[in-house]
Amino acid sequence: MPALDYPPPLQRLIAQVRTLPGLGPRSAERVVLWLLQGGGRVEPLVDALQHLADRVEACGECGFFLERGQDCVLCRGPKRNPRLVCVVEQAADVLRLERSGAFQGLYHVLGGKLSPLDNVTPEDLRIEPLLARVKTRQVEEVILAVGSDVEGEATAGYLNDLLRAEGVAVSRLAQGLPAGGGLDHADELTLYQALSGRRRL
Amino acid sequence: MPALDYPPPLQRLIAQVRTLPGLGPRSAERVVLWLLQGGGRVEPLVDALQHLADRVEACGECGFFLERGQDCVLCRGPKRNPRLVCVVEQAADVLRLERSGAFQGLYHVLGGKLSPLDNVTPEDLRIEPLLARVKTRQVEEVILAVGSDVEGEATAGYLNDLLRAEGVAVSRLAQGLPAGGGLDHADELTLYQALSGRRRL
Repeated sequence: MPALDYPPPLQRLIAQVRTLPGLGPRSAERVVLWLLQGGGRVEPLVDALQHLADRVEACGECGFFLERGQDCVLCRGPKRNPRLVCVVEQAADVLRLERSGAFQGLYHVLGGKLSPLDNVTPEDLRIEPLLARVKTRQVEEVILAVGSDVEGEATAGYLNDLLRAEGVAVSRLAQGLPAGGGLDHADELTLYQALSGRRRL
Repeated sequence: MPALDYPPPLQRLIAQVRTLPGLGPRSAERVVLWLLQGGGRVEPLVDALQHLADRVEACGECGFFLERGQDCVLCRGPKRNPRLVCVVEQAADVLRLERSGAFQGLYHVLGGKLSPLDNVTPEDLRIEPLLARVKTRQVEEVILAVGSDVEGEATAGYLNDLLRAEGVAVSRLAQGLPAGGGLDHADELTLYQALSGRRRL
């Protein structure tokens, strides 16, 4: 006699939920059992998922999300400086930078970072559209706002070579102490970079 | 000018995903952005969710899940002792006990445990169906296999009073050292209970 298990449709959903980032087998099981409790929990989720699939798409230029049929508020917004393009890994990074209020140019979402270990190659990222933008628009400076981890550094180096060949200025986010952080919480590499990147007052 | 945010359908799905157990605002955002990447990730999830809603329901007697139109393998299974009913908090607990192979009676899923702080009252649990089973079937013993935390203890105490009034024997899972665990890893309460529940050899 086979061991008891959940009915197949339930097993299938658990397997689907497990593919989501950050969800392991136990948390996927907990989510699915929760959905089955109380009644009426599956339908709003299905509605929201379908609404997303029907209505949201990525902007062909910057890669941020927009509602189908509407203009991209970032690419077509007024008061945006089209000479300046800020390259980020994820769409969520656009929101973070916007909230900082420090940038008024255009964005370009790569969709990830180079990572041979995870099989992420240049073809998987939105690098071609970036080069096309630089070639056809009058872009003066590209700011590489990718992370300062190993993959981010590799991605920045790769893009720098390509962009320099197009004759555009390339810059990178400053590295140093985070705001409000004392030296006691900073790791050695951060201190090294804060020191070597010191500014005259 | 309002701060930039995701398009409304995307915000709506993030809000929906946040209601799932174990998912906070950041993990919900990560899951939804992941769904939008690469294309074709939303549809299989929607399919599996709808398949679940269409095909799976809870057994009216034990509360475990079954495919609509099929018999409950637990309630209608052969070689099951109908005089013995094991009460558990969640459907997942049924699988855990079945895998242990220690039980051949019937199950009863409560759907949670009493927890005034989380607004879980006796009316929210499947207590009425349990009393109905005890009254109409020839149940001899009810095993309360609920957790040994505060809410589990409260639930066991509450059920014990109700079930005793029906003239049925009530028991509780043994507490003590977990299998393979030394005394060095046991907390004081576990040691206290292992000592006071000691068995003669």
